[in-house]
Amino acid sequence: MTDLDVAALQKRLMEFAAAREWEPYHTPKNLAMALMVEASELAEIFQWLTPEQSAEVMTDPEKAFRVRDEVADVLAYLLQFAEACGVDVLAALADKIERNEVRFPPGPRALD
Amino acid sequence: MTDLDVAALQKRLMEFAAAREWEPYHTPKNLAMALMVEASELAEIFQWLTPEQSAEVMTDPEKAFRVRDEVADVLAYLLQFAEACGVDVLAALADKIERNEVRFPPGPRALD
Amino acid sequence: MTDLDVAALQKRLMEFAAAREWEPYHTPKNLAMALMVEASELAEIFQWLTPEQSAEVMTDPEKAFRVRDEVADVLAYLLQFAEACGVDVLAALADKIERNEVRFPPGPRALD
Amino acid sequence: MTDLDVAALQKRLMEFAAAREWEPYHTPKNLAMALMVEASELAEIFQWLTPEQSAEVMTDPEKAFRVRDEVADVLAYLLQFAEACGVDVLAALADKIERNEVRFPPGPRALD
Repeated sequence: MTDLDVAALQKRLMEFAAAREWEPYHTPKNLAMALMVEASELAEIFQWLTPEQSAEVMTDPEKAFRVRDEVADVLAYLLQFAEACGVDVLAALADKIERNEVRFPPGPRALD
Repeated sequence: MTDLDVAALQKRLMEFAAAREWEPYHTPKNLAMALMVEASELAEIFQWLTPEQSAEVMTDPEKAFRVRDEVADVLAYLLQFAEACGVDVLAALADKIERNEVRFPPGPRALD
Repeated sequence: MTDLDVAALQKRLMEFAAAREWEPYHTPKNLAMALMVEASELAEIFQWLTPEQSAEVMTDPEKAFRVRDEVADVLAYLLQFAEACGVDVLAALADKIERNEVRFPPGPRALD
Repeated sequence: MTDLDVAALQKRLMEFAAAREWEPYHTPKNLAMALMVEASELAEIFQWLTPEQSAEVMTDPEKAFRVRDEVADVLAYLLQFAEACGVDVLAALADKIERNEVRFPPGPRALD
């Protein structure tokens, strides 16, 4: 599968938007807003579920489809936002993990 | 750079969480909620900016750092969520682009 | 109009939920999540609009209906959340305005 | 307490913004975005809590303060947004409850 890497998908997304003349809409501000809206649509699937039900969500084919679909939308806007801002998403995450290794030393700790 | 691909970063994130005993917190529901919160922190950087100011955001080093940092956080929770649900994020996005090619034929069109 | 005050609407919302046996779903966590989802649906109406278009949104009857509808949903979940947590929303806001009067003395200042 | 009604608080918020010359920032789009960001900050308090812990959140004075503070912020932006769009929030909610009475007849029903 040749296009299953981040850079190739990012390129397809840019071409997709260009072919529909969507670039004027794609300011960093609007893309950040759209990203938040899509993240929220993903969360909506879970809002009334117990923790246990949420762990079983992918056993329901209709919900599983929605989950994959919303994950794709979140990634699509994240990659378009990153392109608009010149951010390398994988390098940004690798750097962040390194900072977090220092900030949160290994060992049990509560999340709050 | 050996670990700059999605699968390797996903693995590091899982090890990071395991080393701190965070798995009990990492239900799909909680990860979807955290993803939305991080997307919101990214959007917050832009909330009072004009479209023009938003296009210049990376020229301010302090804001550029925050943008990269929040992009990393969004991707971190997206990958952890995807792992918890068994979703392949790149395949999900490739599928979605194909569905959208059908749904929105090329040619100028307004976004609403 | 007798029931157009916050306490009366809050009471109607509680009765509405009770009549449908929704209380088990209405934990503070779930209500906070639903509130965020509804705020996001309101924001979605504006995501591709310019600042100028956003100022004219209520001149479009279909969009005006959606705006009022989403405002109602946000307020509905805010009041149900507040009830679940024993927060008096109007007193909380009055207190916050007073704190902000001290924190941001009057006079022109940029928002960032 | 004379100013503990919605209209009076809305007026204080408008005066507060005017005294700091914040009106140019307060487009409907920006206020909707800020509302979503504040709703997200409220949700953040709950993101790692179990349903049971979330029901006990107000017993922790520090968390109780944050909850009240974020509720105030959500209401502040909701009222400023509504003012900017000419929406009467209480009437909008009363209308919505009436529509929902028809849409969801009383009786037990699952939320999904």
